Amino acid sequence: MAANAGAPSGIGFSQSRAHPKQRSLLFSYASSSGTFKFAYFPSRFSLRSVDNSKELQLPRITAVVKAQAGPGQMDIDPTLSPRVNSVKPSKTVAITDQATALLRAGVPVIALAAGEPDFDTPSVIAEAGINAIREGYTRYTPNTGTLELRTAICRKLKEENGISYTPDQIVVSNGAKQSIHQAVLAVCSPGDEVLIPAPFWVSYPEIARLADATPVIVPTSISDDFLMDPKLLEDSLTEKSRLLILCSPSDPTGSVCPKKLLEEIAKIVAKHPRLLVLSDEIYEHIIYAPATHTSFASLPGMSERTLTVNGFSKAFAMTGWRLGYIAGPKHFISACAKIQSQFTSGASSISQKAGLAALSMGYAGGETVATMVQAFKERRNFLVKSFGELKGVKISEPQGAFYLFIDLSCYYGAEVEGFGIIDGSESLCRYLIDRAQVALVPGDAFGDDSCIRISYAASLKTIQEAFMRIKKTLAALRPTVPV
Amino acid sequence: MAANAGAPSGIGFSQSRAHPKQRSLLFSYASSSGTFKFAYFPSRFSLRSVDNSKELQLPRITAVVKAQAGPGQMDIDPTLSPRVNSVKPSKTVAITDQATALLRAGVPVIALAAGEPDFDTPSVIAEAGINAIREGYTRYTPNTGTLELRTAICRKLKEENGISYTPDQIVVSNGAKQSIHQAVLAVCSPGDEVLIPAPFWVSYPEIARLADATPVIVPTSISDDFLMDPKLLEDSLTEKSRLLILCSPSDPTGSVCPKKLLEEIAKIVAKHPRLLVLSDEIYEHIIYAPATHTSFASLPGMSERTLTVNGFSKAFAMTGWRLGYIAGPKHFISACAKIQSQFTSGASSISQKAGLAALSMGYAGGETVATMVQAFKERRNFLVKSFGELKGVKISEPQGAFYLFIDLSCYYGAEVEGFGIIDGSESLCRYLIDRAQVALVPGDAFGDDSCIRISYAASLKTIQEAFMRIKKTLAALRPTVPV
Repeated sequence: MAANAGAPSGIGFSQSRAHPKQRSLLFSYASSSGTFKFAYFPSRFSLRSVDNSKELQLPRITAVVKAQAGPGQMDIDPTLSPRVNSVKPSKTVAITDQATALLRAGVPVIALAAGEPDFDTPSVIAEAGINAIREGYTRYTPNTGTLELRTAICRKLKEENGISYTPDQIVVSNGAKQSIHQAVLAVCSPGDEVLIPAPFWVSYPEIARLADATPVIVPTSISDDFLMDPKLLEDSLTEKSRLLILCSPSDPTGSVCPKKLLEEIAKIVAKHPRLLVLSDEIYEHIIYAPATHTSFASLPGMSERTLTVNGFSKAFAMTGWRLGYIAGPKHFISACAKIQSQFTSGASSISQKAGLAALSMGYAGGETVATMVQAFKERRNFLVKSFGELKGVKISEPQGAFYLFIDLSCYYGAEVEGFGIIDGSESLCRYLIDRAQVALVPGDAFGDDSCIRISYAASLKTIQEAFMRIKKTLAALRPTVPV
Repeated sequence: MAANAGAPSGIGFSQSRAHPKQRSLLFSYASSSGTFKFAYFPSRFSLRSVDNSKELQLPRITAVVKAQAGPGQMDIDPTLSPRVNSVKPSKTVAITDQATALLRAGVPVIALAAGEPDFDTPSVIAEAGINAIREGYTRYTPNTGTLELRTAICRKLKEENGISYTPDQIVVSNGAKQSIHQAVLAVCSPGDEVLIPAPFWVSYPEIARLADATPVIVPTSISDDFLMDPKLLEDSLTEKSRLLILCSPSDPTGSVCPKKLLEEIAKIVAKHPRLLVLSDEIYEHIIYAPATHTSFASLPGMSERTLTVNGFSKAFAMTGWRLGYIAGPKHFISACAKIQSQFTSGASSISQKAGLAALSMGYAGGETVATMVQAFKERRNFLVKSFGELKGVKISEPQGAFYLFIDLSCYYGAEVEGFGIIDGSESLCRYLIDRAQVALVPGDAFGDDSCIRISYAASLKTIQEAFMRIKKTLAALRPTVPV
């Protein structure tokens, strides 16, 4: 194997050694039971035999699995913890990496797979980070974050979200993902159930599994705008139910949970003393009027039951700064802090100063964030209108976040020469990256195989070009259902 | 309770409400079974009754435990995960926070408790961070770190440590603590044993427990310069032994493991196919000639068995930047990457650019780091000489890191009026913070109650003042053992 070319998560690619003149890319995914690989051939897909690998046909992707008898010849026990084996790597990360690797190899892929704003961090935030470095503010901060940042977060949560917290009810982390993970580790005992509405952010079920908890999926439907059916939630609750994860605005659907529905959910939660709620509000500011955001913890009686997660990455275009936080009842937050003290300690001192500046930009990030949201809205409008003109395609107009989660199942069943049958979201996405050179994320990663996720965190021009490519490529398929 | 005053890890302090005119500070530690508190009264210690708390005498610290019947009046199940209950919060963090709180309250405490260099981040590194922000290098990096940083780390490990890795054998994290935690989670199955030589860094046993593994302590002695007895290691191995954690130069002892001893350990490791080694080399560059650093993975046959952990915080005075890494066999490193992808994703993009600059400063950090190490050495020499003049005190001269782990057990058994009996490292440290106003960390936190840890990451002047205070205060006690 050639050296890994910068792709993360144990995913690498290499030019095939066996046929150096034939341009092909081999993707490999490290996994507990071996190394899964699949080859990318511009304009065609086929089985390959590479090195000492043996061919086989995996359910969905054409793949080669390299025989693995422990790492190398050493007499070493390669056993990994069962918790590692039970967890899937993030598919959004994997596909973004594939796209990056293809771009690096000169393939003009348009990547609409990542959950990352295409804007630069606003200058007032950047300057605060620079000043922190200049002033030598580069030492450990307290484990839970600086008092000034936690105080500012409390003020924000009071003013924007109507929830009262004190600074000792806040833990600042290296991103909201860490906040969620620690919260699940803190409150879930082995065997507890974590209720996750689908479509869901790819990491929720894996985070539950890493905590030895059981993810329980509560499906929603595109025809209901991906909003939860309270009755279905009620039916899913058992005495093992410990945590309900809510995400509004939602990744991947962009759906925004109306206050009235949240109130219905709150009534159900109130009836189950064991049930806590983790409200992931990371997309809070990226919301399109008339939709409005309601914090679950602001509902009567819910602040004592809710762990509110938020962060700076999405609204403030600060993904690389790694800064998120959790707020909630002190008892649970102290447990999160204890885990964090043994896991990473506090977040970057520089990023915390930058986060403080972000919170000083005015209500909901002020004009700067409003301008970004307006840009996202224009892109959403373009995509909703354009895809709406394709026959058989089903859309729920996103009210927030920067994703379109679109039902393209009308194309499933189509057979493509030299490619095979498109039998679900994964093969459709493979088809689209192969023929349209647009990288999207299959809906099955989010718990809904009928859809794919398009991130519109890219310029309108890029999105227009991507749509043209997708449209043209889909046109070669015929919707297989009557429309 | 007054609002938390910025102290981390669920540790707060407040002026006592009950007696507002009496100057006292109340420390509280959040814990699974309630809130532990103890009061600080300049120049005396006593039991207090505060609010609805009830008095009791804990084994070592005078404390009040607040009755806890769930958070507030709500009918909520306050159960935390057993893994949280099994883990202790970091005592070094707790004591540093106490010192910070005392300073905030106007008590002139000298804090020699933290594991943090007192130097600023070198300017070439700081400038690289500033440039990263200016250039908008503020997006997500790959999960395992940027290719350029991982490549630079490989070059460093080759040139300075004699170990060959490829970039896909590196995972960059938010500090070395995260690297260690993920490695233990990846390779240890529930019930596996993690061998930890004592005195140990406070987090090793807790990290093992968080991974459902069992810490097995292998004691060493000050008379052996805290070096491991290979026979004792061999005797401690069972079929459940999965991971041996080595830390050289050592926190808390400053002891440096000679190559010859490492080779003996390697021979033992080679005989146990299940046994892997985690080599924590974070203090590698802070070493005093003639001592030299040997990477365990550089020993014959050991690179396939070893997970090498290192980072930027200590040698490059970059604690606030949060940047560490792990290197090892790809099979295990991929598992670490998978955990990280669901835990935090990649580290700060800005810090990674800064880390790259740090690795460009020349062999072992070049002149800049050498200057810092020289300063540490002068402080060490002062402390070793000064404490060496106190009767009954036992010292092993540290060869690296910036800690003196000193045996003051000759003072145990002394009875102090208005204080009580000094019965171990914890009460001695309480006595010293109370009467000398110097904050040190009791050795029991590191698995050796006969010693206390003095961090000399402070100016020589501060250290001299601290020593004078300690000497004077100890003089009031009489060594209780014949010398």
